[in-house]
Amino acid sequence: MIILNGGSSSGKSGIVRCLQSVLPDPWLAFGCDSFIDALPARLRDGSGAEGWIEFADDGSVIVGERFRALEAAWTTGIAGMVRAGARVVVDDVFLGGAASQERWRKALDGIGVLWVGVRCDSAVAAGREIARGDRVPGMAAAQAELVHQGVSYDLEIDTTRTESLDCARAIAARLG
Amino acid sequence: MIILNGGSSSGKSGIVRCLQSVLPDPWLAFGCDSFIDALPARLRDGSGAEGWIEFADDGSVIVGERFRALEAAWTTGIAGMVRAGARVVVDDVFLGGAASQERWRKALDGIGVLWVGVRCDSAVAAGREIARGDRVPGMAAAQAELVHQGVSYDLEIDTTRTESLDCARAIAARLG
Amino acid sequence: MIILNGGSSSGKSGIVRCLQSVLPDPWLAFGCDSFIDALPARLRDGSGAEGWIEFADDGSVIVGERFRALEAAWTTGIAGMVRAGARVVVDDVFLGGAASQERWRKALDGIGVLWVGVRCDSAVAAGREIARGDRVPGMAAAQAELVHQGVSYDLEIDTTRTESLDCARAIAARLG
Amino acid sequence: MIILNGGSSSGKSGIVRCLQSVLPDPWLAFGCDSFIDALPARLRDGSGAEGWIEFADDGSVIVGERFRALEAAWTTGIAGMVRAGARVVVDDVFLGGAASQERWRKALDGIGVLWVGVRCDSAVAAGREIARGDRVPGMAAAQAELVHQGVSYDLEIDTTRTESLDCARAIAARLG
Repeated sequence: MIILNGGSSSGKSGIVRCLQSVLPDPWLAFGCDSFIDALPARLRDGSGAEGWIEFADDGSVIVGERFRALEAAWTTGIAGMVRAGARVVVDDVFLGGAASQERWRKALDGIGVLWVGVRCDSAVAAGREIARGDRVPGMAAAQAELVHQGVSYDLEIDTTRTESLDCARAIAARLG
Repeated sequence: MIILNGGSSSGKSGIVRCLQSVLPDPWLAFGCDSFIDALPARLRDGSGAEGWIEFADDGSVIVGERFRALEAAWTTGIAGMVRAGARVVVDDVFLGGAASQERWRKALDGIGVLWVGVRCDSAVAAGREIARGDRVPGMAAAQAELVHQGVSYDLEIDTTRTESLDCARAIAARLG
Repeated sequence: MIILNGGSSSGKSGIVRCLQSVLPDPWLAFGCDSFIDALPARLRDGSGAEGWIEFADDGSVIVGERFRALEAAWTTGIAGMVRAGARVVVDDVFLGGAASQERWRKALDGIGVLWVGVRCDSAVAAGREIARGDRVPGMAAAQAELVHQGVSYDLEIDTTRTESLDCARAIAARLG
Repeated sequence: MIILNGGSSSGKSGIVRCLQSVLPDPWLAFGCDSFIDALPARLRDGSGAEGWIEFADDGSVIVGERFRALEAAWTTGIAGMVRAGARVVVDDVFLGGAASQERWRKALDGIGVLWVGVRCDSAVAAGREIARGDRVPGMAAAQAELVHQGVSYDLEIDTTRTESLDCARAIAARLG
């Protein structure tokens, strides 16, 4: 299993698609985006409805207890796919830094994980957020450093000046 | 847990979104579309690459062994989410009819499931396939009857003349 | 040229795709959605930024002067495509009713237009809005009657109980 | 008016979104993608149906006469929007090189155009094509040089090592 952690617009999704291309075996890709897509529309809009998830004007994200509880069940299920034999790559945004990693660690007990930190210069990520056009403005800058606090990695990559495909090759090389 | 089975363009996705809206608790939605989205692009295009999945010109779908094996791991993971406390609604296309249902049953051992058959007149579904514009032509007609062969349900709904929201309300009423 | 007018979630887009399928010649499809997609992201979000366009909480839409001016230039361009020989079908939401139709009429001076009213029962449209899951809640109900006020048509269709493909065939039959 | 020409996956769309963000006035964005989205589904799939448009296995694109004729009407309409007062940025892929530019020049007679060449190293563009995951493999490499043959520009930018936002700022600076 591979887990990529990085801020919004740091380039995780592009790396995941390249990983799926360069790895000869089929890897399933999941992540915080696919989890949020699975939620009811009323909880997905970042309005903070029902204390769920809120996207503040400064780009910060406030995650409620109920979101965390459902996310934990989802995490357990992803672990179950891996234990059942699936190769899985997850991209996530560790808003809680080390605490977020600890949550994954508990769910993945006994599973070999390659932990990958995806860094990107804050200003560059903010520019890419504009280029994508479909992201909440300010998230990239707000998360660029935050998500890495206290997290430990097997491999760190920086997308500021490295293409997604080259990042993917570096990760694939570490899988052995 | 709720499992909806029906052919392509029978209206499953709309019913799922309405279910997520009318049910007061948060239900996670997964299905064959989200599974296929998780696959590497080269296996997702229906070309039959690597004996994976093939969309034939007559609208039929040929599913290979490797697809089935990875799908089984995914199914196990979905069951794991439910066991961990998540409410989950799945929409699927039982290309193997009763055999497909049996695969889910094994994975879901001990979990209470509401089985829902989603029917739609074949010609109407074929028309809706054209109206959507992003589907492989012919799938709706090819699957309309096929997917229900030998499958047993707790509830059957027909979208030919019933709106998605009304179908969702009927399903919600059966959840008690 | 064909212009379809109807409220949000009345089924215009599905009819347009069916029209493009049943008509033997290639027809280009444009509409208020493609116009809004062409705008800068900051003006597209319905926040009312720069007095542009605002999606109110009750589902009503407030359109500013600058939006109208740019829309008029776009309308002129669509007319130009038709004069240059393209077959064009437009789907629009006449928030200003008769005044919106008058704006199109001026731009289309000398061009033969088939005016089609797309009606849908307000409650049914509101249900379909939920089933789509990506629309601003309340718009369907707010616009169901509003957009038809004072508008005259060559043909009116009602999607409440008629499929998109049948509506498209009725329109195609009127083209002669 | 601004016209960007570059191969598939050279980064045109990201630059357009950044341009729309950095330019204080509202600019409408159109391009070959929005033109193709306006076509009937049966002509849009690259199968070469009805001699329309064909995406070959080696990434090359064969454009038929009827596609060209309809595209010319579309081009005339875009010119009409500009003459009616809209600021428009177009991104295109000049498969015919100088001949493609000449077609635009004729339609835009009397309109001031900033011609921008968007270059990207062929191998880098091919990598970004993989990272996007939704493009026809091979197009990026096939078009990287081809589209610039005989085309003259007011400004050339290279996205190989320059971010979209910086490219957009360079273009905006040239608008004066």
